[in-house]
Amino acid sequence: MPLTRLSVPDHLSAQQVRGLADAVHDALVECCDVPQGDRFQLVSRFERDHLILDPTFGDVQRTADACVIEITFLLGRTDAQKRRLYRDLAARAAGIGLGQDDLVVGLVENGAIDWSLGNGRAYIDK
Amino acid sequence: MPLTRLSVPDHLSAQQVRGLADAVHDALVECCDVPQGDRFQLVSRFERDHLILDPTFGDVQRTADACVIEITFLLGRTDAQKRRLYRDLAARAAGIGLGQDDLVVGLVENGAIDWSLGNGRAYIDK
Amino acid sequence: MPLTRLSVPDHLSAQQVRGLADAVHDALVECCDVPQGDRFQLVSRFERDHLILDPTFGDVQRTADACVIEITFLLGRTDAQKRRLYRDLAARAAGIGLGQDDLVVGLVENGAIDWSLGNGRAYIDK
Repeated sequence: MPLTRLSVPDHLSAQQVRGLADAVHDALVECCDVPQGDRFQLVSRFERDHLILDPTFGDVQRTADACVIEITFLLGRTDAQKRRLYRDLAARAAGIGLGQDDLVVGLVENGAIDWSLGNGRAYIDK
Repeated sequence: MPLTRLSVPDHLSAQQVRGLADAVHDALVECCDVPQGDRFQLVSRFERDHLILDPTFGDVQRTADACVIEITFLLGRTDAQKRRLYRDLAARAAGIGLGQDDLVVGLVENGAIDWSLGNGRAYIDK
Repeated sequence: MPLTRLSVPDHLSAQQVRGLADAVHDALVECCDVPQGDRFQLVSRFERDHLILDPTFGDVQRTADACVIEITFLLGRTDAQKRRLYRDLAARAAGIGLGQDDLVVGLVENGAIDWSLGNGRAYIDK
């Protein structure tokens, strides 16, 4: 139950958007011990005026393709896992036609009791 | 000031969407000591390709109607309150034509100083 | 890397929406030590039925223009900084044709390791 929000510019192709969603999930599986089936993603397209991302902040070169990846997941991933996630995501960007500076990633953590995946149960009680 | 984001598939009727919004608010009032008037909800519809929810993760059977409910609220609800919230939401699902596994819920907590509801004041100072 | 989500009613003009985005960024720079270039904002328009905001909760008078401002930023801003942010935002509302009760603000905090702004690096390692 990482829950991922992908905010992407309108002009990206459906294939790129799907590629990004796959890449983010694969990176979470690879780097953060997320189970393969544990995939929950929301994708929103934004017109240019509604996706306001500074082009260079952080000493990078963002293009008009830049996307925002927000992941809410369980507290407990180590700093090393998070660093590996960022590296892995950037490595996957080229495969979907994005620049390595075109992924802005923000993580928010919550607790095991903070998820229900259905059936009226806390996930922790499954 | 729970702030709730409801992410729902495009094909749900306006009546179902309103029913879901009502159900989530009523469940918060019932289970989490949220005042009746304290209702702040954002609803977004998603086309099928943009709402990517694994159909069975968590040992459930999600349908194409599955929705995501993200609630940001004050730190301090107990585990028992959260469990009750999940049960209560699932119990309300049938009333709006949703399956009991069609609600994915994620909670995020913040502090009392982290809300302003208007007039330039922190809510805690009202 | 505050990441800001602005949720606004459909009927606001493009000029008002841009004014709001500018106001929120300027307030963060002024009150919360956010660098001028550190601007990351997502704007979503909502039809009336999808932006459900109680009109008076919190002892205020919200109008149909009311907007929701969600800011995710680094842990560490003081209560005084947050109070100043709320005051400053309300003071800027009139300049964009909004009432001083028309800004609902929620803050969520994360850690320095929880951001990557590009190039596969954690922001903290830049």
